Amino acid sequence: MKAVRLFEFDRPPRLVEVPEPKISGPLDVIVRIAGAGVCRTDLHLVEGVFKDGMADKMPFTLGHENAGWIEEVGAGVPHLAKGDPVILHPQPSCGLCRNCRLGNDMHCTGPSFFPGFDGTDGGYADYLRTSARAVIKLAPGTDPASLAPFADAGITAYHAVKKLLPIIHPGTTAVVLGVGGLGHFGIQILKALSPARVVALDTRPERLDFARRLGADEAFQSTLDGGVNAVREVTDGQGADIIFDFVGEHGTPDTSLKMLHRGGTYSQIGYGGSLSIKTVDLLLGEYTIVGNIVGSYNDLAELMELNRQGKVQITAQQFPLEDAADVLHELDAGRVEGRAVLLPAGVRQGSAPRATVGASAR
Amino acid sequence: MKAVRLFEFDRPPRLVEVPEPKISGPLDVIVRIAGAGVCRTDLHLVEGVFKDGMADKMPFTLGHENAGWIEEVGAGVPHLAKGDPVILHPQPSCGLCRNCRLGNDMHCTGPSFFPGFDGTDGGYADYLRTSARAVIKLAPGTDPASLAPFADAGITAYHAVKKLLPIIHPGTTAVVLGVGGLGHFGIQILKALSPARVVALDTRPERLDFARRLGADEAFQSTLDGGVNAVREVTDGQGADIIFDFVGEHGTPDTSLKMLHRGGTYSQIGYGGSLSIKTVDLLLGEYTIVGNIVGSYNDLAELMELNRQGKVQITAQQFPLEDAADVLHELDAGRVEGRAVLLPAGVRQGSAPRATVGASAR
Amino acid sequence: MKAVRLFEFDRPPRLVEVPEPKISGPLDVIVRIAGAGVCRTDLHLVEGVFKDGMADKMPFTLGHENAGWIEEVGAGVPHLAKGDPVILHPQPSCGLCRNCRLGNDMHCTGPSFFPGFDGTDGGYADYLRTSARAVIKLAPGTDPASLAPFADAGITAYHAVKKLLPIIHPGTTAVVLGVGGLGHFGIQILKALSPARVVALDTRPERLDFARRLGADEAFQSTLDGGVNAVREVTDGQGADIIFDFVGEHGTPDTSLKMLHRGGTYSQIGYGGSLSIKTVDLLLGEYTIVGNIVGSYNDLAELMELNRQGKVQITAQQFPLEDAADVLHELDAGRVEGRAVLLPAGVRQGSAPRATVGASAR
Amino acid sequence: MKAVRLFEFDRPPRLVEVPEPKISGPLDVIVRIAGAGVCRTDLHLVEGVFKDGMADKMPFTLGHENAGWIEEVGAGVPHLAKGDPVILHPQPSCGLCRNCRLGNDMHCTGPSFFPGFDGTDGGYADYLRTSARAVIKLAPGTDPASLAPFADAGITAYHAVKKLLPIIHPGTTAVVLGVGGLGHFGIQILKALSPARVVALDTRPERLDFARRLGADEAFQSTLDGGVNAVREVTDGQGADIIFDFVGEHGTPDTSLKMLHRGGTYSQIGYGGSLSIKTVDLLLGEYTIVGNIVGSYNDLAELMELNRQGKVQITAQQFPLEDAADVLHELDAGRVEGRAVLLPAGVRQGSAPRATVGASAR
Repeated sequence: MKAVRLFEFDRPPRLVEVPEPKISGPLDVIVRIAGAGVCRTDLHLVEGVFKDGMADKMPFTLGHENAGWIEEVGAGVPHLAKGDPVILHPQPSCGLCRNCRLGNDMHCTGPSFFPGFDGTDGGYADYLRTSARAVIKLAPGTDPASLAPFADAGITAYHAVKKLLPIIHPGTTAVVLGVGGLGHFGIQILKALSPARVVALDTRPERLDFARRLGADEAFQSTLDGGVNAVREVTDGQGADIIFDFVGEHGTPDTSLKMLHRGGTYSQIGYGGSLSIKTVDLLLGEYTIVGNIVGSYNDLAELMELNRQGKVQITAQQFPLEDAADVLHELDAGRVEGRAVLLPAGVRQGSAPRATVGASAR
Repeated sequence: MKAVRLFEFDRPPRLVEVPEPKISGPLDVIVRIAGAGVCRTDLHLVEGVFKDGMADKMPFTLGHENAGWIEEVGAGVPHLAKGDPVILHPQPSCGLCRNCRLGNDMHCTGPSFFPGFDGTDGGYADYLRTSARAVIKLAPGTDPASLAPFADAGITAYHAVKKLLPIIHPGTTAVVLGVGGLGHFGIQILKALSPARVVALDTRPERLDFARRLGADEAFQSTLDGGVNAVREVTDGQGADIIFDFVGEHGTPDTSLKMLHRGGTYSQIGYGGSLSIKTVDLLLGEYTIVGNIVGSYNDLAELMELNRQGKVQITAQQFPLEDAADVLHELDAGRVEGRAVLLPAGVRQGSAPRATVGASAR
Repeated sequence: MKAVRLFEFDRPPRLVEVPEPKISGPLDVIVRIAGAGVCRTDLHLVEGVFKDGMADKMPFTLGHENAGWIEEVGAGVPHLAKGDPVILHPQPSCGLCRNCRLGNDMHCTGPSFFPGFDGTDGGYADYLRTSARAVIKLAPGTDPASLAPFADAGITAYHAVKKLLPIIHPGTTAVVLGVGGLGHFGIQILKALSPARVVALDTRPERLDFARRLGADEAFQSTLDGGVNAVREVTDGQGADIIFDFVGEHGTPDTSLKMLHRGGTYSQIGYGGSLSIKTVDLLLGEYTIVGNIVGSYNDLAELMELNRQGKVQITAQQFPLEDAADVLHELDAGRVEGRAVLLPAGVRQGSAPRATVGASAR
Repeated sequence: MKAVRLFEFDRPPRLVEVPEPKISGPLDVIVRIAGAGVCRTDLHLVEGVFKDGMADKMPFTLGHENAGWIEEVGAGVPHLAKGDPVILHPQPSCGLCRNCRLGNDMHCTGPSFFPGFDGTDGGYADYLRTSARAVIKLAPGTDPASLAPFADAGITAYHAVKKLLPIIHPGTTAVVLGVGGLGHFGIQILKALSPARVVALDTRPERLDFARRLGADEAFQSTLDGGVNAVREVTDGQGADIIFDFVGEHGTPDTSLKMLHRGGTYSQIGYGGSLSIKTVDLLLGEYTIVGNIVGSYNDLAELMELNRQGKVQITAQQFPLEDAADVLHELDAGRVEGRAVLLPAGVRQGSAPRATVGASAR
C-alpha cells in the first residue's frame, strides 16, 4: 500500500510503497483510512522537536488524526465489523492501569502507543493498525473522511475546555488565542458547553469573521500588542478570566499573562515557545497555568456527540495523500483555514476534492 | 502607643510613638495586640518589592499576622465584646462583592484593605484597627499571643493545600519544599486533611528531623541538586504528584518541575524568584502550575478548628516588640525555627519570652 | 400605602392600607415595588403548610419575588441611589457566617429574614424594606416590573440546575417535569448552561409546544403513566440521567424514580407530595436524590446576566395588585402560563396590563 | 473441589463437590481462594431478595469477597503469574464502555458479571474464575486470607466516604450508624481520608468501645430514639452534616433524617428497609440523599494502599469453609464482630483459626 513516511529530520516526508499491516493480537484492529488530518505536530516531528529516542524507529508513517472503516479485527473484538465507519482515538491504551480506569487514558502507564507520533506507523496510508480500545464507532452511513481532525485537534481543544468548565459561569470572559485548526474547534466547544463570553484573537484579519461565524462574541486582530489592550477594553480594564492559548509561541504565553484577571487561568494548548513569570506575580495574580495534552477516549466520544447534534462542525480542506509534503508546507505558511485532511487514492474518488465542508457524524 | 513603622525602603523599620487608632465606622473593631507574626513578606516590604503606589503611604506600621483581644467595637458589631480573644484575617473585605460571597474574599473587589501590607497600619503596635468581617473569635481563655502566625503563614499554607485536596488520594506523593514558617504548617495541614505521603526537602539538615516530627513521611537535604534525585528515588523514578514550593526562589521553581510526575501539579507559595518552562514541556508533562495568595476567612476558621483539635500546632519564638528590626535580621539569615512573634510590652509580662511553644486555640 | 396581607389561614389575603416601611438600620434599603411575582408557595402559605411558629406574626404582607426601584437607603449603603432599578434576593443574609461567606447565603445562620414568607412584610405592596446585601442593581433604564419572578422561581430553578452541571456532558438526558412557572425557567437555564438533551413532560398538551419554544429537545404529555414510557423510549430503554421535578406532588417523585437511569439523579424543586423508596432500590440504582431550596445571591446575579444576554427570558402575565386573590385562584387552577406578576397602582399606568412579555434586564 | 452453593431460597447453602473452573477466554484468571468474606448480602441472597431472573441460574456458589493466589491465567494476561497473592474486585468489567473508562466500572454497561451474587460461581470454594480486570496484585509474601472483606464491605464503605469528601472540612460532623462489618471500615476510612469528627451509633453497647478504638471521636448507644438526641446534643442542637447509614433498615433511614443538619447529606449503604420523606421537608432541609453500591477497582486499590500504610485494618474472624451455614446464622444473629471469613481446607492448616487479626497488605 501507499504511505507517507518520515525518513530523516528536516526533510519532507515521502510517499512510498509499504506492506499492509496485519492482525497480531486479539485486540488488534485494521482500519481502512478515509482521511488523515494534517497537524502542526507533524511539522514539529519533521523539525525533530521530538527526536529523543526516535532514531531507531525511523522511517515511520506519519498521521495521528485518523478516521475510516473497519477492515479486519482480532479474535477478542466481537463488537466491530468490516465496513463500520469509525474515528480513532490517537493513543491506544492498556485499559488496566489506574489512569485508564479513571478517564485519563492519555496518561496510560501500561503498554500504549501513539501511531504516527512515537515511531509507530500512522494514518498517512491506505491502512492503519490500532487497538479495539481506540475505536469509536460512528453511525451507519457516516462519511468519516472529513471527521479525522476531531481525533486530535478536536479532542485536544475539547479536553482543554472541559477541564475549565467548573470555573466558567455567566459573566466569565474566555479569550481564544489563535483561530486556526485547534482554535476553530475551541470557540465552538466553548459555546456548546458553557455560557462563557468568547473573545477571539488572531493576527490575520480574515480569521476574525471566521471566528464570529463560529460563535465568538467578539474578535480582534492581535498584531501589535498581542491583543492585550483589546481584551482589557472589553473587560472594563479587568482582563479575561481565562485564556486558551492555541498558539503557544511567538510570545503568546507572555502577552496572555498580561491580559489575565486576578485569580485567572491560562490554559496552554499550542506549543513552540516558552513561558516565564516571576513568582511574586504568580502569587499576587493567584494565576493558574494549565498545560494540556491530547484528550481522553471519552472526550472524543462526547465531542462526536456534539458534532452529531450539529453544535461543533469541522472546517476542513481535502487533499490527495500524495500531496502530503505540499500540504505541510502550506500549513507552515499559515495558508490553511481550519484543518487539512489527506485522502488515500481509493477514497478520493467520488468525493469533492479540496472542498471546505461542514461534516457531522450522523 | 508604640508602633514599629517602615519609614523608607532598604532601611530597618523603627519603633516610634503614634496615636492609638479610633473607631470611625459602624463595622470598625479595635484590637489590643497580643502577638504579631514576623513574615518574610515584611523583609520584601523593606526591600521595596511592593513599592509601586506605596510612596505616599509611608510611613506605616508593619505587621499583617495579628491576634489579640477586642478593645472596642463600632455600632454595627453586636457579637463581639471587650476582652474576647480573637485572631484576625489579614484582609478585611467588603462582604458585598461576588468574591466575598463565594469564599474568595482574598480577591474582594469592593473596598478592602490589608493592614501592615498595603500602607494601612498593621499590628507591630499596641492596638490595631480592623473590621468586623476580619475577626474570628477564639474560645474564652485562649492565649492569642503565639497564634498570630496562623493569620497569614498558616492560612496561606492551608489555602494552597486545600485547593489541591481533590487530586490527592491514597498513593499520592506530595513534596513540601522548605520547612520554615510556611512549610512547617504545610506538612501538618497535609497530614491532617489528606492521606498524602509527604516528602519534605530543606537545605538545612537540622530541619529534616523537625519535618519528621511534624509528620513528614520522609525528609531529605536538598543542597546539591535541589532534591530531584531523592524525590525520583522514593517514587520509583516517577517523580512526585504534587510539589508545594514554600521557597519560590533560589531556583526552586525550576528544580520542582524536574521532580514532577507527568500530569503533576506545582503549587507555588514562597516567592522571590522566577519560573520558566518551554510550552512543549508544559504540554508533554500536562503540568498544572498554581499560584497562591493568602487564604480566605473560612480557611482561617477551619485552620483554627484543626489547631483546637491539636492537629496543627505552631512552633513560635516570642520576642519583645522593640526587637523587631533584630528579629527581621535573624529571619533573613535563616535563623528562626518555625515562626517569630512580636509581643507588645504590656503583653510580654508574665509569659515566657523567647520560648518555643506548641499553642492551641481552646 | 396599599398592601395585600394574609390575615388567617385558608382565607384569601386582603388588600388593606398600611404604613410605609422606614429605614431603621445602616444597611436598610427601601424599595418602591415595580412588580411582585405570584408563586405556588403563596398558595401553600395560605393553606398553612408553614404555619408552625407563624401565629404571632399574622397578619403580614405576602410577596417574596420582588423588583423595583431604590427609594431610600441607610447610612452604610453608599453604592445605591434613589431611582436605581433593582431586583431583590428574597432572603437578606448576615454576611458574616460561614454559609454567607461560602456562596450558601440561603443557609445563613446569622440574623436573616425572608420578606413575604416568614412573617416579615413582603412585596405585595407599594414599598418594601430589605437589606443592602439582598439588592442586585440592574442596568439603567431597565423596566423591573416583569423581572420579579427571577427573584425566586428563577433562582430556584437556576440553583437546582447549577448543582448538577458537574454531572452533565454531551449525551446526558435531563427530564424537566412540569412546564409552569419554575419549569419554564428550568428548560432555558439547562440549554443556556449545558449541552444536556432536555425532555419536557407536562400533563397539559398546550404546554408541550411552549416547552419546545423554550428549547426542549422533546416534549411529551405525562397524563397516563407520568411519562415513564416516553422517557424510556427516547433513551433506548435506559431511562434519564437526571430528573428535575418542578412539580413534587401528585405522585411525580415516585414516577420519577421509575424513569431514572442506574446511577441517575433525581432533583426535587416543586413540593407538596412525598417520596418513598426501598433502600435496596436506592442501592441497586445508586441514585442520588437532591432537595433544593432557593438559590444564592450570586445565583441571581448570574441568572440576570443570562437574561441580559437574552438566553433566559420570562413569560409573565401582569395583573393589578388589587387582583391578588383572583390571581392566586387562577394559579391554583393551573390557568397561568409562565408566571403572574402583580403591579401596584402607580406602576401599572403606562404599561400594558395582562400582556405576556419577554423581558430582559439590559 | 468443595464449594458452598445456594440450591433454593430460604434454605441454608450446602457444601458439595463441584468441578474446578477452567480458563476459557484470553483474559480469564483462575484464583486459588485464601479466604472469602461472609456478607449480609449473602443472607439477603438466601432470603430471595434478589430472586428476579435468578431461578435458572440455581444452584450457584456463594462468595463475592475474595482473596487468594493466582493459579492460572489466559493468554492475554502477561502481568500475572501463578502464586501471586491477589485480592479481587467483585465485579469483572468490560473495560470498553464509558463507565469503565471513567472510574465507574461498577456501572459497566458492557459484558460484566458478579461472581457469588448474580448466579455466577463465587468464592466459597477452593477455586474461582474471574477476569484480569478484576485482579489487584498484593505485595509478595502477603497473606491474603483475612483481607477478603476489603473486596466488598471495604470498598463499599470506601466508595461511600470518598463520594462525600468534597463536603467534609474541619468542623464537619459525620455520623456512622452501625459499627458492624461495613461500619468498622467506615470509621477508619473517614479518619484516614478526612478531618471529619466521627460520631458512631450502635444498638449494642459493646460496640461503642470498638468504635472508639477504631478512631470514632464519640460513640453512643442508639437503642431508644435511634441516637437522635445524642447527635443533636453533641452538635449544639444543629444535627450532623453527614450520616453514613451502614444499617439501612429497622427505621434507620427515618431517624437519620431527624438528626441531619439543614443542607446535610444522608448516605445509605446498608439496606433492607425503606426511606420516606415529604417533599416540603426535603426542600426546607435542602437534604441530599445518596445511594451507594459497591466501589470501583481504583477504590479497592486505594483502600489496599491505606491498609498497607496501617491506616485501615480489618477485624476478621476466620472459620472453616464447611461451617458456612453456621457462620451465616451467627451473622444473622448479630454475633460477629467485624467480619467473618471462610477458609478452604487447604488454606486453613497453619493459620490460627478463628483468631481476630489485624491484617495489612504488605
